[in-house]
This record gives sequence, structure tokens and C-alpha cells, in this order.
Amino acid sequence: MAKLRVAVVGASGYAGAEAVRWILRHPRLRLGPLVARSEAGRPLSDLYPQLPDAPVLQALAPEGVAERADAVVLAMPPGEALEWAGPLLSAGRQVYDLGPDFRLADPEAYRRHYGRAHTAPELLARAAYGLVELFAADVRERELVALPGCFPTAACLAVAPLVEAGLADPGAPIVVQAVSGLSGAGRGLRPDLMFGAAHDEVRAYGVGGTHRHLPEIGQVLTRLGRRPVEVLFTPHTAPLFRGLLATCHVPLAGAMTTERLLAHYRERYAASPLVRVTAEPPGTRSTLGSARCAVTVRAEPSGRYATAVAAIDNLGKGAAAQAIQALNVKQGWPESTGLEGGLWP
Amino acid sequence: MAKLRVAVVGASGYAGAEAVRWILRHPRLRLGPLVARSEAGRPLSDLYPQLPDAPVLQALAPEGVAERADAVVLAMPPGEALEWAGPLLSAGRQVYDLGPDFRLADPEAYRRHYGRAHTAPELLARAAYGLVELFAADVRERELVALPGCFPTAACLAVAPLVEAGLADPGAPIVVQAVSGLSGAGRGLRPDLMFGAAHDEVRAYGVGGTHRHLPEIGQVLTRLGRRPVEVLFTPHTAPLFRGLLATCHVPLAGAMTTERLLAHYRERYAASPLVRVTAEPPGTRSTLGSARCAVTVRAEPSGRYATAVAAIDNLGKGAAAQAIQALNVKQGWPESTGLEGGLWP
Amino acid sequence: MAKLRVAVVGASGYAGAEAVRWILRHPRLRLGPLVARSEAGRPLSDLYPQLPDAPVLQALAPEGVAERADAVVLAMPPGEALEWAGPLLSAGRQVYDLGPDFRLADPEAYRRHYGRAHTAPELLARAAYGLVELFAADVRERELVALPGCFPTAACLAVAPLVEAGLADPGAPIVVQAVSGLSGAGRGLRPDLMFGAAHDEVRAYGVGGTHRHLPEIGQVLTRLGRRPVEVLFTPHTAPLFRGLLATCHVPLAGAMTTERLLAHYRERYAASPLVRVTAEPPGTRSTLGSARCAVTVRAEPSGRYATAVAAIDNLGKGAAAQAIQALNVKQGWPESTGLEGGLWP
Amino acid sequence: MAKLRVAVVGASGYAGAEAVRWILRHPRLRLGPLVARSEAGRPLSDLYPQLPDAPVLQALAPEGVAERADAVVLAMPPGEALEWAGPLLSAGRQVYDLGPDFRLADPEAYRRHYGRAHTAPELLARAAYGLVELFAADVRERELVALPGCFPTAACLAVAPLVEAGLADPGAPIVVQAVSGLSGAGRGLRPDLMFGAAHDEVRAYGVGGTHRHLPEIGQVLTRLGRRPVEVLFTPHTAPLFRGLLATCHVPLAGAMTTERLLAHYRERYAASPLVRVTAEPPGTRSTLGSARCAVTVRAEPSGRYATAVAAIDNLGKGAAAQAIQALNVKQGWPESTGLEGGLWP
Repeated sequence: MAKLRVAVVGASGYAGAEAVRWILRHPRLRLGPLVARSEAGRPLSDLYPQLPDAPVLQALAPEGVAERADAVVLAMPPGEALEWAGPLLSAGRQVYDLGPDFRLADPEAYRRHYGRAHTAPELLARAAYGLVELFAADVRERELVALPGCFPTAACLAVAPLVEAGLADPGAPIVVQAVSGLSGAGRGLRPDLMFGAAHDEVRAYGVGGTHRHLPEIGQVLTRLGRRPVEVLFTPHTAPLFRGLLATCHVPLAGAMTTERLLAHYRERYAASPLVRVTAEPPGTRSTLGSARCAVTVRAEPSGRYATAVAAIDNLGKGAAAQAIQALNVKQGWPESTGLEGGLWP
Repeated sequence: MAKLRVAVVGASGYAGAEAVRWILRHPRLRLGPLVARSEAGRPLSDLYPQLPDAPVLQALAPEGVAERADAVVLAMPPGEALEWAGPLLSAGRQVYDLGPDFRLADPEAYRRHYGRAHTAPELLARAAYGLVELFAADVRERELVALPGCFPTAACLAVAPLVEAGLADPGAPIVVQAVSGLSGAGRGLRPDLMFGAAHDEVRAYGVGGTHRHLPEIGQVLTRLGRRPVEVLFTPHTAPLFRGLLATCHVPLAGAMTTERLLAHYRERYAASPLVRVTAEPPGTRSTLGSARCAVTVRAEPSGRYATAVAAIDNLGKGAAAQAIQALNVKQGWPESTGLEGGLWP
Repeated sequence: MAKLRVAVVGASGYAGAEAVRWILRHPRLRLGPLVARSEAGRPLSDLYPQLPDAPVLQALAPEGVAERADAVVLAMPPGEALEWAGPLLSAGRQVYDLGPDFRLADPEAYRRHYGRAHTAPELLARAAYGLVELFAADVRERELVALPGCFPTAACLAVAPLVEAGLADPGAPIVVQAVSGLSGAGRGLRPDLMFGAAHDEVRAYGVGGTHRHLPEIGQVLTRLGRRPVEVLFTPHTAPLFRGLLATCHVPLAGAMTTERLLAHYRERYAASPLVRVTAEPPGTRSTLGSARCAVTVRAEPSGRYATAVAAIDNLGKGAAAQAIQALNVKQGWPESTGLEGGLWP
Repeated sequence: MAKLRVAVVGASGYAGAEAVRWILRHPRLRLGPLVARSEAGRPLSDLYPQLPDAPVLQALAPEGVAERADAVVLAMPPGEALEWAGPLLSAGRQVYDLGPDFRLADPEAYRRHYGRAHTAPELLARAAYGLVELFAADVRERELVALPGCFPTAACLAVAPLVEAGLADPGAPIVVQAVSGLSGAGRGLRPDLMFGAAHDEVRAYGVGGTHRHLPEIGQVLTRLGRRPVEVLFTPHTAPLFRGLLATCHVPLAGAMTTERLLAHYRERYAASPLVRVTAEPPGTRSTLGSARCAVTVRAEPSGRYATAVAAIDNLGKGAAAQAIQALNVKQGWPESTGLEGGLWP
């Protein structure tokens, strides 16, 4: 059986390198070209010595990549996938974009939150939002998959069962607070990402609803709930490299018990091999290096609010592994093919 | 000028040892006896080698402590201060209790949340809740000071300016999510406190409104707001030792801007030397080893919610330093006497 | 092709659980029974939630294990493998012991360093020391494989090329200093393994030649050098979970340059797929979650000393992965079968 | 009593900011101007929010500083103190240099190791090497104090008692391996100092005798031993911010026991209030935030080697606190004035 060749564009960043890791361990995939313009000519193992015999990074153009790969993972800063998606799709390649360029359905919202015009709005209708547990049909049908941001992945998986079933009270906001490891901020040299600034530091950012993942969460929940859902969202960082925990408070339309909530979640995710519903609140260690999401839910004492907590590895389920999961679904393979395991103990 | 002798009961735990640290650097205090029954006979420096020439831990009874100290810091597990406070007060000693025994005004609530009868309810009326920024008058007048828990300290300082001024909408809950370093869980041997369990781990606990600090937060905010305030509260741990960040979403009675909110906070805390209102969200590093609280507030885009963030060192302002601050106030000394500084860079 | 069934005895500890991880990802192995007497009846995922659908731990005796497995990994405290190895070998099973019971050839040395009599000395002659890069022939021929300790693995790989080639000066000691992550100390509840004791802490232990891995290093190097080699060894811990770095100073029989040393190492390890010789000193991150050893060597300015540095994951190459490597060799499979990869970025 | 005004030049870096911390808590010092050219105009609390109400950084020239301070701490990159020391000394100011410009007595060695000409060689004779425990007389007599590097501080305190008493065998090298927290590398933006590169990472650097602190250690030990002492030195980093541990293997001229060694160390440091000799090996936590060095020593089993271990806070005793200690000595004040305490628990 011929393996599918998967290229990675932006392979020198954390999400791109993580995509390489998942491709290498997948039984039906093989590595296509790795593109990283500014690091072209260096083996990837120069940047990530954990990868011996890694291929050399190249400076290919979209056409060159299209010639050498069946599917392409894009792991680039905002705006760059706008240039790459069109040529790759025209060449008939599957595109999995880890960046934000095709996540928001409204190009005007993109302009507002990313500070640049959306130069490929005609592709938005061809893009699926790649949260497979929620939108598998879209992923199967569309050739361009926009993978969710790391915070939206955890937050939406945490509250979707309530919103889509009409169990959430639409009249009050859902409050999402989340804590991420520092790999979420990427490999750039920034003072706040230095060990000396990040050690012993828990910090909120995007306070006051300014984080770019907020409109993404709102769009997903509004679609699921079939009416506008208001979200308050505050992300944080903590001194770990991988891992993301989202804690969400959801007003309920009617009082519920923890038992009923858990039963509802278990049923909702029964067919989702990469989501595990647990009775105890999950921690980030339990998903380290994995493609899984662990989620729990409890009723507050009054029964009128639910608190849902989801843990993921922000680079795994929160980024690269999710692209492979979408690819599995599109290929008709079992959803978790090549996505087992994690780092444990 | 004779210095005040301050004893510490429970000096072998983190909060007790931290109290020793603050007493030693205070210009008007000197160390009285250090009591730690199970470790009696060992110098404190056996447990905390950072403290050279530390005094030997003793196994004194309340009467013995009362003879040798003017003021006493109690740093004991729930229930033990119930035995100590009475004899010390009868002997005319000031008592500063870092534990929970005298925080909840209602003995029935104590029984419910701490699983034991309150055996000294007659002392509750003589106890001040020692959050000096909010209840200085009580602290001055009463001989027993119950210092707030670490989470309530940060959460209440973060939202008090809104609640006490009637700016919070009483019809919707305040959502408090907080992240604490692991020193908050104490020095006991527990599997979840092992390095191997806590490294790379962010974890929620008390999910579903079960944490004992929740009724305490509710009591304070209800008193400040002069009507019942509903609070949803989820605490977390992250891989740091000291430090606590509380992020609070507050529904507003009327729309406000970030500028107005910040101005209100600055005015509210203008006379509080240990609270610093900042425009940027504070992180836990900025209060490491200190007695200070750093707080910011922002309006959400709609203007109908405020998000307030407060950072403290859970052992400093969140525990031992707060006892010294209360003592300063009771003595009529400047509130921050002996409480300057911190560990920086 | 039928897969080989591999049981793990002591599967609840870090090394045992890590063995499960490596078995699960190996294309020619399948998991046999998992034994953990004190945790019998619980699924392994109770202890390691990273492992969904993990098998239930059992309380089998050696005979029960022998019936249900072709090969057995023992991951038990000192002394326990003495009871297990005999019955398993008698039943014709391959035995891979991660513990120390069969590492030292001299039962008297075992008694001295482990404080207990060696109750199965007749098996010592049937045991190979499973450092495949150095003793592959033994591993192939003998049915019992004693896997090296984590420190000896790194130290011996770092200095073996010098000692076995007669390049080290036998008249002066080799100095080994090493730093390990805390997983090396296991999953037991100990005060020094608490987050609060280990955070921000680098600590030496076994100072003065008292660590049990010292005689093991001496035995290997003496065998390689064909005359007694004196070793000074000081292990340390640092605040990381996985990872071990050994830095070794070796007196040279004759002056050498860094270039010649590196060329010698590259040649020595050319046929060892799991050892990577690098020009730059390796760090522990570069072997995180992997089965590899990264090693470099440099001449000191005088040319009369070499400094060699080796990095491993103490649970991977330093423990469980090394057992799988030995099993591969004994089966005649490529040495690194199922041992590729690691956690990266 | 008038307080001595102490300026800090280079106050925006870690060592400079730490100097400000120690000056602020000293009962006989007050803060003079803080100089940081590139950050002039910003309050120091912009960079270190832990310091409320911090003075504004200025861009003064040496003359301006001399006018406004009695003593000056220089905390600058290599080469810059060469420009500052002369004018300050000419103006009669005490100078405490935390950088390397006046540590090596031989200007040619400086040129070789720091890659630049020594432009103020005439000042070398006026400079004391400020390791007070070893060279207090020099510190008292000379107006320019060159404070030791962090590694030399720990290494020299660890082995000095053996070398100066003739107990070390001069015919064989002393091996020093040391592990430092990342603050030792300063506040600059470097890829290897990012959290993502430093987390879970223990790394050797300067392998092969290339670290600039090596000639400094050699110079001190040669002076103490009154004949050339050969040193092999390998520094490492580990994932902590503050803290440095040096482990040193010393060949002995004659066999000794641990008891004799410890007694010798205790006697040697009996008059040194900031050195604590412990029977158990010290860890870095035990000196966190302090001005102290903790040291132990043990005989290897043969009795022919001693292993000495010293822990310091690299920013405290390893840098800024040591400058204050030297200042205390020069002023004739008790050596540890203002240098008590640390961060504990």
C-alpha cells in the first residue's frame, strides 16, 4: 500500500516540527518536503536534535511542494497561508492549515482581529473548521481544513455538549479561563518567553477580551447553539512547555446534577476515540505528548451552572495531531490512526 | 524601644516558617518561642537550611507560649486553633490565626465545610477578618485576627472595589478562577505534591464549588455588597512553588470603560501601601517573596463585564506577611513596616 | 507473523510503566500481563492517565507470568528479581531485569552495596550486562539480561571508547559527575522528592563514593580496560523529571586533540544506531522520551585529559528502552526496532 | 549616622538589580543613582515590577556618578568597567566591580580570555580580588574591588581549605564541575535562554576548558597553594533561575577521613559568618536569595581524594551580595551587616 506523502510548510517552528513528529510515526504517511524559508539548507535536527537523520529544510514555492506531496500541513504565521492555500488547492492537494487564516468565516472579522485584509475570501467557503469531534462532515467534504487554535480546541470540546444540546442558558455568558504552556507562544525570541521571565510566573494576557481566539470560540459555539453565544475569555501562561487546560463556567437552562452532566458527556463523545471523559478533573500531564483531550464536567452546588474542564497538549490535539486526525477522517481511515500514545510516565 | 515578642505555633509548616522569616526582618519585632509539637527539639534550620542559627522548635502548651510572647501567630491545621485561641486571649495576648478556624462568622458553615464542630463559637464575635485593606477597623478593635485564606485574599482584593461601590450587578455570579503554586498545599507527603506528579502539570481542583475558600469569598463579598453575592470558584495548581493569580469576571451594574475602572481601583487603593494597581496584568513573579498584592482591571468589549486580575505570593500577602500587616495596624505602626521588598530579579 | 508477548513485573513504577510504553509502540511485540502486587486490580491508567484503555494490573506469581508471556521485563526494587529470575528461566522465558540484582558479577560486592545476601549466585554466570553497545555478544548468548543502571549507562558510553582502546591513563582516576531528573528516584513518597523540596534545587548525593552505581561503573570500565580502573563518581539531581547528563574527565595515556577524539568516537559508535556522537555538547532535552544516547568528547587545553559528556533519558535508554534494545538484539532484529522517535519539539 | 550612598552602574541587568535589592535592605547604605544607558528614563520597576517606587534609571557619566555617590557597584559587560574605574577612583570613590575586568592579575591573560586589550593595566595593582573569606586584607587595603565570578566563588570556597593548607596533592588536577541557574547568563535575548530551550534541559558548556572562569579559578588556587594548581572545569546549566552548585574532586597529599576534613573546614571558616559548613551536602534551595555559601566535604573511600560541594545563590554570594560583603569589610563594619536572610521556605 503506497503511503501518502505529507509536506510541512513552516517546519522549523514548534507546530511544524510537531507535525513532522506525528507524520513520522503514522503507519500510512511518509514525510514529504519540509519547507522553512529562513532556515533552508539546515537539517531539521539542527533545530531539534531529538530528531536524528532529519531531512534538510528547503525553500520551495507552493508549486514545488505540490509536485512532491499529496497533502500539505501549513504551520505559518498569520497571513502566509493566504498565499499558499490557493496554489496547493489548484494543484489538487489536500491542505491542513494550523494557522488562523481560514478559521473565521467572516473576512471582515479576520481583518479586525488579525489587522490585515483577507486576500483569499473565496476560499473560505471551501474551508472546514477542523475540529473533527464537532464538524467531521465538513472535514470530509472540503479540501481545505483550518485547524482550530489551541484554546478554542480545549474550550469548545469542554462546552460543546452543553451548547449543542440546548442545555446552556443563552441569556448569560460562558466564562472560559485557560492556562497554556509556553510552547503556545512559539519559538520567537521574546523577553516574556525567556526562562528568567517565565519561571515561577503565572500570567494572564489578552485580559478584557482582546485575544484572537475569542472570536473563534464565539463562532463555534454560536454555530453549535444556533444563536449568539456570549463568551468571556482570559488566557494565561504557566511555567510548563506543553499542555493547556481550559476551565469553563456555563450557565444552564435548567438545573442538572453532575451525574447527568457526566452521562451526557460520555454519550456525546462515545464515538470520539481521542476524547476521554473522566470523573476526576484532568491535568495537563495526562495528555503530554498525546493527541487526546481529557474532559470532565460538574454541576455547581446550585445546579444552575456547570463547570467543564478540558486538558490537551497544545502542540498535539491543540495543533499538529489534530491535522493528522482530520487527514485520517478525510482519507476514511480510523480517526486515531497513528495518534495513539503519549509521553508517560 | 522594646521590641514586641512574637511566637509562632506550627512553625515547621510553610506558613509558620514564612512567619518566622517576616518576624526576623521586622525592625520592631523579635522572635518568641517557636512551637511544633512533632518536630520539637530540632532547630528550625534542620527543616529550612536557609535559616542559619535558627531557634529550636519546642512543644509548649498555650500557657507556656503566653508567658514568653506578646503576640502569637497560629499556623496550624483546621481545628487546632480552636484550642489555642481561648487560653492565649485570656492571657491577654494578641492572636493572629493563619488557619480557617475563625474566618467564617457562622459556626454552622464551619461545621459544614470543615467537617467538625466549632468548639469556640463564643470567640467568633471577637475575631476580625484580617484583610486589612477592607476591614482595618475590625482589626484594630478585636484581639483575635483570622487571616484570610490565600485564594480569598487575591479574589477579594481583585473584586472588592466593584462590589463595595455597587458597581457589580448583584443578579449574576462573579466567576473566580485562580492558579496557585504548590506551597499552598503545605508540606505534607502527598502523591499529587511529588515533583513527578506536579512537573508539567496544571490541574483544577475543587471543581463544582467544593473548595473551602468559596464560602469565605462569598461571606466577604456579601458583607461588602450588603446583599448576597453568588460566586463560582475554581482553584488550580501550576508548577511553581510560591505565587497565586486570581482572575475574576464581574458582571457590571452599568457599562464601564477600562479607564474608569482603573481610576476607581487606583482611588480605592490609594491609601493601601501593599496593593499596587497596574495597567498591565500582573504575574506571580512580580510579587515573589513579597507582602504585596498587584492588581489590574479591564472592561470586556461589551463594557458589561469587568475582568480583574490579582497576583500575590500565597505565603506572603496570602498568609504570613498578612499577619504582620494586621499586627502593624493593631499596634498603630505604619501598615507596611517590615514588609518592604521581595525577591527580585 | 506472531508477535512476541512481553510481560512487565513491577508495572506500576516509573521504569515498569515506561517499559509498557515502549512495548506498545513496538511493531513486533505485544503486551503480556502486567504485574504489580500492591496495585493489583487497578487499570494502569489509574496511575498513568496518559494510557487510556490500559490493562489491569495483576498479582501473578512467576509461573503465571511464564505461562502468559515469551519474555519478561522485571522492574522491581533490589532483591525481588532474585526470586523471579530462576522460575522464569526454568520455564524457558527470556528475562530482562531493570533492577540491580544481576548487574554485579561478584555476589559479595552485591551484598556489600545492597545490604542483602545474593540468593541466586548460580544465575550470575548466565546473566549478560545489557549495555548492547559494549556487550552485544553476551546479550545474544545469555538468557538473563541485567540492564545497566541509568548513571552507568551514560558514564560507560561516555568513556568506553577511551578505556577499551587503551587511550585512558590507567594510573589516574576517571571522574564522573552526573545530573539526573527526579524520575530516577522512583515513585515513592519521600520528602526530598516533593515539588517543594525539588523545585529550584540542585543537590549532590552519594558524595564520597557511596552511590550503588559506582561499583557498577568500575566493573564495566575494568572489564573494558582489562585492568583496574579507579572511578570517582558524584551523582546529582536537578529540577527536571526525565533526563540524565554525565560529564566525565578522563586522564589520557598520550596527548590527543578534540578532532582525533571525536573521530575515534564516531568510528567506535558507527554501528550503534542509538548512540549519536555530536560535536556540540548534548543536553538532556535532546534525548527526551527517546531510546538514544547523545555523546561528545573534547580535549582539555593541555591535551592530557579528555572530557566526555553523554545525555540520555534515564527512563528510556537509561532503563526501559534499553531492555527492548537488548531484546531486539537477542531476537536478531535490527537493534533500534520500535525505538525510534522521542518527544520533540 | 549618615548612610553611605551607593550607586549602581548597569542596574538594569540581573546582577545590577540584585545589587539594588541588597542596598535597599542594608541598614547603613542608601541608594545612589542607578545608571543604565539603554534604559535611561524608565523606572527600574518597569523591568522588575517586584520593586515598587523604584528610582528612574539614568544615563550619567562617571563624573556624574562620582558626584552623587560614595561607593559605586559596577555591573557591566566585559570591557566597560575599564572605562569607569579610573575616573571613579580618581574622584576618591570606592569601586566594586561585578564584572571580569580586574579579576585576572595578568593583562595578557585578560586579552587572551576576553578577546580585548586591557586598557587600564595600571589599575590591576590597586585591585583586590574580593573573595572576602580568602583575601580580606587585600579588600581592606585597596580601593578597587574585583568581585569573583559566580563559579570561582563556589569552587574556591569549596577547595581553598585544602589547597592553602597544603593538603591537596599538587601533582594531579583538581576537577570542578558546576551547575548554575540560568540567571547566570544574564538578561539578554538568546535562543538557549528561552523557556522552550531551557525547560527539562541540563547542558554542559565550555567543555574542554574554554570557560572564562577557569583561569580565574586557577589563579586563586595557585596563589593559595603557592605553586601552580591545575584545574579541569566544566560548567553546566539546569532549569532553575537562581542557584549554583560546585562539586570538586581534590587529590590529597595524604589520606584523610571525612571527619578530619570536616573539622578542618569548620575551623577554617569559623570566623566567616557567610560560610556554613554542613555535614550533609547542601543544595541550591538552601541558599536561595541569600548571601551565604554552604559547603561540605567528604573523603572518597580510598581516602586519597576529597569531594567538596559548595552551594550559593549565583546572584547573591556569587555576585551582588559579595560586593556588599566587601564593602562592609572595607568600612570596618561586621562582615554580614545587611546580608542576613534569604527566601525560605
